[in-house]
Formats: sequence, structure tokens, C-alpha cells
Amino acid sequence: MGYEYDVKQVIVVRNDIKMGKGKLAAQVAHAAIAALKMAEERRPEWAKGWLEEGQPKIVVKVRDLDELEDVYARALADDLPAAIVVDRGLTQLEPGTVTCVGIGPAPKDHIDEITGGLKLL
Amino acid sequence: MGYEYDVKQVIVVRNDIKMGKGKLAAQVAHAAIAALKMAEERRPEWAKGWLEEGQPKIVVKVRDLDELEDVYARALADDLPAAIVVDRGLTQLEPGTVTCVGIGPAPKDHIDEITGGLKLL
Repeated sequence: MGYEYDVKQVIVVRNDIKMGKGKLAAQVAHAAIAALKMAEERRPEWAKGWLEEGQPKIVVKVRDLDELEDVYARALADDLPAAIVVDRGLTQLEPGTVTCVGIGPAPKDHIDEITGGLKLL
Repeated sequence: MGYEYDVKQVIVVRNDIKMGKGKLAAQVAHAAIAALKMAEERRPEWAKGWLEEGQPKIVVKVRDLDELEDVYARALADDLPAAIVVDRGLTQLEPGTVTCVGIGPAPKDHIDEITGGLKLL
């Protein structure tokens, strides 16, 4: 539809920690907003196109913290907008628990190189 | 901490429709971003303070669509930033299903007048 990029956002969640579904949703929203803010600063054309296209996003899972940190490091190494969420631990989780990573908005092909193999949560 | 407002965001979810937890989280993130964008346009000082404070947000539930639309209408009537999310229905839901409403960032007391009685999801 005339946009320069076909962009999406992927939020990657640890599957080895227990959170209620409302808590989980809040963590994912936090990651989505933090990654968007990063994109708005560094690649505003990606952010703008994504918002105009209806914010396409998916939520996927990784096994544990190691795998999450690996995904995060690869996103940063690829210079993608990426944000890692650390819970303050006021409820449900231990303080400082890393819960999820938001990647993008960024071009689909570019994100898929990192998250393409991960399953939907 | 020196901010003019003590702000938060509340995302209100229908409890009468079945969504997987990843799908639910994506809908909540969508509502959170849409409401934030509205705040950035109309009350940028609320949006800025909220982002600087670590984006405090909670996810609460209502019984059904009627109750959700009522909450949404009251938020708009109170001139709060508010966004309603309609799913495109590509997966899990019928096209056009209304899933949730994001309210704020806005001053806590102001939002609580509308959502203070709702239970955490």
C-alpha cells in the first residue's frame, strides 16, 4: 500500500516462568512500547509505517532466560530496535526477573532471521 | 519524584471471549500503544511522565461487550485518552470482534473513577 517497508513487531516471552495471563499481557505491552520508542528514535520510518498499517505483531516463546538473552543479543547485533523487560517483582515474580523482549517494528525479513524459528505462545 | 502527575494506564479486557494467552497479550499491547499514541497527541505531558516512570499499567476484566463499551464511553466522556481494539479475525476470533480498551496514560485518580471497581485479569 505504498509503504517503503513491510514491517512487524515480535515479542518474545520466556516460557519457563509462571505468570497470570494479565501479568503476562502487561509485560508484553511493556516490551512492545519500549521497542516502539526505540524504533521511533532510530528508525522513525519503520515506526510510522507500522502504526499506519495497524501495528502487526505476534507473540512467540523461548524455553528459558539463556535463549531469550541470545535472541536479544542477536537483535542488537543486527541493529534492530529491541528492548528487554525486567519486572520490578512487586507481584508474582522475583524482583529483577527478565520476562520478555520486544523486537521491532522492523522489516519482516530482517526480524524473521532472528525469530522465524520460534513458536507462537 | 518531581513529576507533575502520577499517571498510569489501564487495559480493560472482555472476559467472555476465548483467546490464547499470546493472542490476548498481543491485543492488550495493541490497546496500550493505541491509547499511548492518543495521549501523546492530546496530553503529551501525561505520556512523557508515564514513560519516564516506567510505564505503570494494569490489565483488568469486564464481563462482556456491553460492559466494555460502557467503560469506553465513560473514558471518552471524561476526555481521557482511550482506544478500543477490534480484531481483524484472521485467527481465533470472528472478524470485527471487539477485544479490549486501553485507557491512559492519565492521572491515576481520574482513571480510577472509571476502572477502580474492576478486577485484575
